[in-house]
Amino acid sequence: MSLTSGAGIVHLVGAGPGAADLLTVRAVRVLAAAEVVLHDALVEPEVLALAPQARRIAVGKRAGAHSTDQAVICRLLVREAHRGLKVVRLKGGDPMLFGRASEELAALTAAGVHVEIVPGVTSASVAAAEMGASLTERKVARSVVFVTPALAAGETGDDRWLAAACGADSAAIYMAAGRAREIAQALIDAGQADDTPIVLAANAGRPSARRWRATLAEAARGDLDGLACGAPGLLLVGRAFRAAAAETIAPALSPLRAAQ
Amino acid sequence: MSLTSGAGIVHLVGAGPGAADLLTVRAVRVLAAAEVVLHDALVEPEVLALAPQARRIAVGKRAGAHSTDQAVICRLLVREAHRGLKVVRLKGGDPMLFGRASEELAALTAAGVHVEIVPGVTSASVAAAEMGASLTERKVARSVVFVTPALAAGETGDDRWLAAACGADSAAIYMAAGRAREIAQALIDAGQADDTPIVLAANAGRPSARRWRATLAEAARGDLDGLACGAPGLLLVGRAFRAAAAETIAPALSPLRAAQ
Repeated sequence: MSLTSGAGIVHLVGAGPGAADLLTVRAVRVLAAAEVVLHDALVEPEVLALAPQARRIAVGKRAGAHSTDQAVICRLLVREAHRGLKVVRLKGGDPMLFGRASEELAALTAAGVHVEIVPGVTSASVAAAEMGASLTERKVARSVVFVTPALAAGETGDDRWLAAACGADSAAIYMAAGRAREIAQALIDAGQADDTPIVLAANAGRPSARRWRATLAEAARGDLDGLACGAPGLLLVGRAFRAAAAETIAPALSPLRAAQ
Repeated sequence: MSLTSGAGIVHLVGAGPGAADLLTVRAVRVLAAAEVVLHDALVEPEVLALAPQARRIAVGKRAGAHSTDQAVICRLLVREAHRGLKVVRLKGGDPMLFGRASEELAALTAAGVHVEIVPGVTSASVAAAEMGASLTERKVARSVVFVTPALAAGETGDDRWLAAACGADSAAIYMAAGRAREIAQALIDAGQADDTPIVLAANAGRPSARRWRATLAEAARGDLDGLACGAPGLLLVGRAFRAAAAETIAPALSPLRAAQ
């Protein structure tokens, strides 16, 4: 944790998925000492309030932003660190899961800046806690994959994400809340059973958290469309979620749902 | 969070992988109010010290214990909750990942006990933070699977875990530190490239944390055997870990390693 004089230090900190009390104690301590905080658009005001003395720089990056944005963030981080300031880069969830930490780590290390990483709770863990359904379950799910079908700029589409989602017993699909229909159809086409449970979890870790449960067949016909209304959300797929605490959709259309 | 009178309440709390400051703020608050804490063998004394006033019950369950142990834990939880006490069930890592939470949830719910779940940071996130290598990486790894080859009592072996481990771009293999040789060989036999990086991470989140990096071919010939010495550990497999901060093994045997 020593400050290499001149070259500076950056803490890459996981903000968890929403509530300030879901940060780690270490994250809270680092934020309390921060002089500059660069944060994602999705970090809640109550989390930012943990660093009231810091200058805050919103680097409003969401899924689908251009890679040039990332280059700007890297330059900002290096510049502030080289000023000798205590810099925190605050990312939603866990910085090592879909956080593009590698690019910032590489830029900072190349510039001689020391980096400390403070892990965070990822939204799949929080959604599982909120719905009372474990991501893994003895004799039901011995594996869970965290995957995203979102593509980086310049990447061509491929089915690696689909193979990953189908290979594990449970799947937590990030950055996919608005694509439930397309994803459910892709999973069915790849051989997943029509009646596999799927949960759309929106705003996990926030007071506004909501969840809806359906089957893949129902999701593929559009039953989960439009529910998340653009809120951050993820899809959870697998038998482990068959009894997840969630609203069910259009029960009149699905008389068997109540028996699940 | 309301206490249903008579029926009691149990908080199922993630203790993270080791250090007390890697618990969430919510977990610390719940522990400070606890009257009884049932904890796993792997929970560190400095974490238990967060509940100095509580009666502590060690339920020393580790991988491979008999399922009767689980039944005893469930009975204890119900009994203490029915006494109207503030009960915490403290589990290493995140309770919803390989924590057998489902069985305890089912027993408690059936007994009319209200359960609140407080998520935790899982050891793969902490190991990734310590080694400065993201579990996912743009253009390199769009998925990471958390999987264990450990079998529940009464389960027969199958290759579902292996398909899951091979289907994702990165794999975090839990409860496997002592089986690196066998697992690396299984991955190679299933088609993974010989030179795929593998990291053995022991004691993540503790001052005694250590990591060793090899290739699957090296691990399959036994280079990672015996290093963890029975400490809790996990294996991380995938190209995203090619530059993970870790000791390398027997460099004299592998002159190309330094170039990785």
